[in-house]
Amino acid sequence: MKVSNKESRRENSAYRQLERRLERAMALQAALTLFEWDNETLAPKQAGEYTAKVQGTLSEAYQEIMTGKEVRELLEACKREAGLTEAESAIVREASEELDKLEKIPPREYRAYQELAARSARVWSEAKEKQDFETFAPTLKEIISYQKKFAAYQAKEGQKLYDVMLDNYEKGFSMEKLDEFFGLLKEELVPFLKKVTNSGVEIRDDFLTGDYPAKKQRELAEYLAEYVGFDFRRGVLAESAHPFTTNLHNHDVRLTTHYKEQVDSSLFSVIHEAGHGIYELDIEDELTQTLIGQGASMGMHESQSRFFENIIGRNGAFWTPVYKKLQELFPEQLEKVSREDFVRAVNKVQPGLIRTEADELTYSLHVLVRYELEKMLIEEDLDVEKLPKLWADKYEEYLGVRPQNPAEGVLQDIHWAQGSFGYFPSYALGSAFAAQMYHYMKENIDFDGLLQKGQIEVIREALRRHIHRFGKMRESRRLLQDMTGEDFKPQYYVQYLKEKYGELYQIQE
Amino acid sequence: MKVSNKESRRENSAYRQLERRLERAMALQAALTLFEWDNETLAPKQAGEYTAKVQGTLSEAYQEIMTGKEVRELLEACKREAGLTEAESAIVREASEELDKLEKIPPREYRAYQELAARSARVWSEAKEKQDFETFAPTLKEIISYQKKFAAYQAKEGQKLYDVMLDNYEKGFSMEKLDEFFGLLKEELVPFLKKVTNSGVEIRDDFLTGDYPAKKQRELAEYLAEYVGFDFRRGVLAESAHPFTTNLHNHDVRLTTHYKEQVDSSLFSVIHEAGHGIYELDIEDELTQTLIGQGASMGMHESQSRFFENIIGRNGAFWTPVYKKLQELFPEQLEKVSREDFVRAVNKVQPGLIRTEADELTYSLHVLVRYELEKMLIEEDLDVEKLPKLWADKYEEYLGVRPQNPAEGVLQDIHWAQGSFGYFPSYALGSAFAAQMYHYMKENIDFDGLLQKGQIEVIREALRRHIHRFGKMRESRRLLQDMTGEDFKPQYYVQYLKEKYGELYQIQE
Repeated sequence: MKVSNKESRRENSAYRQLERRLERAMALQAALTLFEWDNETLAPKQAGEYTAKVQGTLSEAYQEIMTGKEVRELLEACKREAGLTEAESAIVREASEELDKLEKIPPREYRAYQELAARSARVWSEAKEKQDFETFAPTLKEIISYQKKFAAYQAKEGQKLYDVMLDNYEKGFSMEKLDEFFGLLKEELVPFLKKVTNSGVEIRDDFLTGDYPAKKQRELAEYLAEYVGFDFRRGVLAESAHPFTTNLHNHDVRLTTHYKEQVDSSLFSVIHEAGHGIYELDIEDELTQTLIGQGASMGMHESQSRFFENIIGRNGAFWTPVYKKLQELFPEQLEKVSREDFVRAVNKVQPGLIRTEADELTYSLHVLVRYELEKMLIEEDLDVEKLPKLWADKYEEYLGVRPQNPAEGVLQDIHWAQGSFGYFPSYALGSAFAAQMYHYMKENIDFDGLLQKGQIEVIREALRRHIHRFGKMRESRRLLQDMTGEDFKPQYYVQYLKEKYGELYQIQE
Repeated sequence: MKVSNKESRRENSAYRQLERRLERAMALQAALTLFEWDNETLAPKQAGEYTAKVQGTLSEAYQEIMTGKEVRELLEACKREAGLTEAESAIVREASEELDKLEKIPPREYRAYQELAARSARVWSEAKEKQDFETFAPTLKEIISYQKKFAAYQAKEGQKLYDVMLDNYEKGFSMEKLDEFFGLLKEELVPFLKKVTNSGVEIRDDFLTGDYPAKKQRELAEYLAEYVGFDFRRGVLAESAHPFTTNLHNHDVRLTTHYKEQVDSSLFSVIHEAGHGIYELDIEDELTQTLIGQGASMGMHESQSRFFENIIGRNGAFWTPVYKKLQELFPEQLEKVSREDFVRAVNKVQPGLIRTEADELTYSLHVLVRYELEKMLIEEDLDVEKLPKLWADKYEEYLGVRPQNPAEGVLQDIHWAQGSFGYFPSYALGSAFAAQMYHYMKENIDFDGLLQKGQIEVIREALRRHIHRFGKMRESRRLLQDMTGEDFKPQYYVQYLKEKYGELYQIQE
């Protein structure tokens, strides 16, 4: 890929000058990323307050560069400058958007909001512990009111507020598009799930829980991450309360996991995070450490983690060469469990209350609930007080389960407490992107055959070539179109789920 | 301690404005510290080049602030401003010195030197591996020539170059003072060491080496660090190739160690690093995250690490309450070894070739060799080519051992390759400071009695009150004087060593 022509550019072009300013901004971002990583994985308990001061100062320095007179003028000059490469234009675009976002919100309001957000996370966490939505409701109201105000500052003429929010996470997927997507999921998957739960097929999975020592799980995690293509010369795997992936650049990508009694929990979380990690590792050298040196969007990132976790990792063919390793590590628990039974167990459908523990089939229905409620909160002024009941009703309707308290209901996720409205849909979109890629790939390569031979690198190479290497240079919808030859088509996702789980649960359509 | 009166100062005073600029500079330093820590303990192998770019950018931003017109003018204004507290004056002093250092060297020369230094470390490391001094000599010559040039830029009228260098690590200890110090060590310890090695006393220490599992050594390390007072709510212990201590602020102090076959190696290295760490933990909240929020000097820092390692940790009384823990952890190796035999073993004198493995008695003689050679290199234009032979001769004379190759001789330390001339003396000074503090403390408290009762906190409190809490606000020599009521008096160090090792080796003076 030839994305820039640095050599041929004049040293004093506006773009070159901009690049030098952005270099410092990116270095500050890298430092902030490292502090976050460190806080989650290692930093001593009582460091928080003092380190927060450092982070605040660095973040202020970042904002000063991005909204400073120099960058502002250089961006204008760049837009007039001829001969920018695609990557350079994309960087100018990203910088302009970042500037817009930072400057449209009055600094005083932004600061007040940040204080609110910090407080909000605490209030939420206490409310969740006490299973008491009432103590969180007033704060949530405030958060929503700020988020709507900020969206209004950002909105283009006639643009709806929730569309502004959605745009922050996934461009090209407004409510119009998402209504269609989630409408299809509701129409197809809700009745299909009922058939699954009524199928009478019982899948045994008791052997997945038990005395799986953390040390051996760690060995397995490293083995699997490497097996699916994560490169430990350019990455690390650590532990944290909640699994996540972050990166300083494409030569330093970091995964975390958490070892539980349930072996499949950390096992698939590691493959999931490795999917995120491989995406970051595959971004071109030329793009890393720039504003487009990251995944294309939230949804596209999630598509890669879910591709690795579900479409590769929960595929029976994947386990053909790998299962014996698992049996060697845990002979007591798995010696007598056949590979077929193991694969069935890790695909067992169990409608539950908690999104992060959901199986592949029910996952997007958890997201559907949140999408519908977010729309109501932002666009229909839904009274916050009504959330717990609405939440419970929707869970009952779509998933057939009803939370007994708000901790396992509306208070389960931190997202709203952090003001992240419009984020949830990207989780479901990611799964659907992945299914569309899978559909395309199966037509071109012997997918299962490759898995059986352990040749995951062929699959990864296709993802690298079509998606990963471009970073954030192109929008997710375009990347998907370029790869598969079609615009986003959620039918592939529904079809994939119905085929896979129809077979597993012996459902005749 | 009331070191500032922030409340009462006008918001727009020059000092307050300076403080805001320095806050950003300190945040950048904290980020640089975290990157260094991360590189040494965790970062993936191939991240180096890309992360170095980030570090370079942040370091440039730091220098820009410190040498910028604003800070320069504010420093001048602060010097005229009345009513600065002691801490504020000290911060102004440190900032001025930093500015001086950064601006006296022409940027072009500084950059050329930095490239040389980076290359130099590589050349040194290869030369050491090949045991070949010749390939390193030309680079070392260049380094020395730059260091002399830089010292000349910094020198006050009539000041000798090596004195300038010494001043960078330890104020108040010029060659005049150090000649006296090292002269005393040479005169007293060289003949004393001969008596020790000829004493005929044999000390058994074979049980210290063997199958000491890393996992149990780690448990011991954490136990001991906490036992001597390191607070894990504000600190962590990790692993790295070479043990070190660093800190982001007084609520985030980090130690590393390295587990070897020899149990006493990591054991005492952890107590040593915990001594450094406790110093940093004890610095006042008011001073942390400022230019004086660190130890007073290299030597003073080393005094604390050696105080904990040797004066506390290698004291027989220390092991009275602790030794059983060691036996519990390693019953196979230590069950049949008495506490007395263990204490004798960890105090065994064994003149060797490697400084970092030296025992307490011979340690400062390793430093003596380096001090004498540095003086010759800087002040007497000693031909670099002559170093290996001179080094070997001096080791033979002072320690009775002669290196067979330069890897175990002149190439053993990285310091000169990094241009750190004037650094070594602080290692020996630290030990001498510690002995003087010990002398003073024994007159005021029942030192051994406290150790026997496990009440190390009383000893630590004395160090905190007299030394730690002041950070870099006051110079090391003044702190020592204020604590002990006397100026630096190296006789206490010699006396301490001769008493302790005279008894152990049954030497009649």
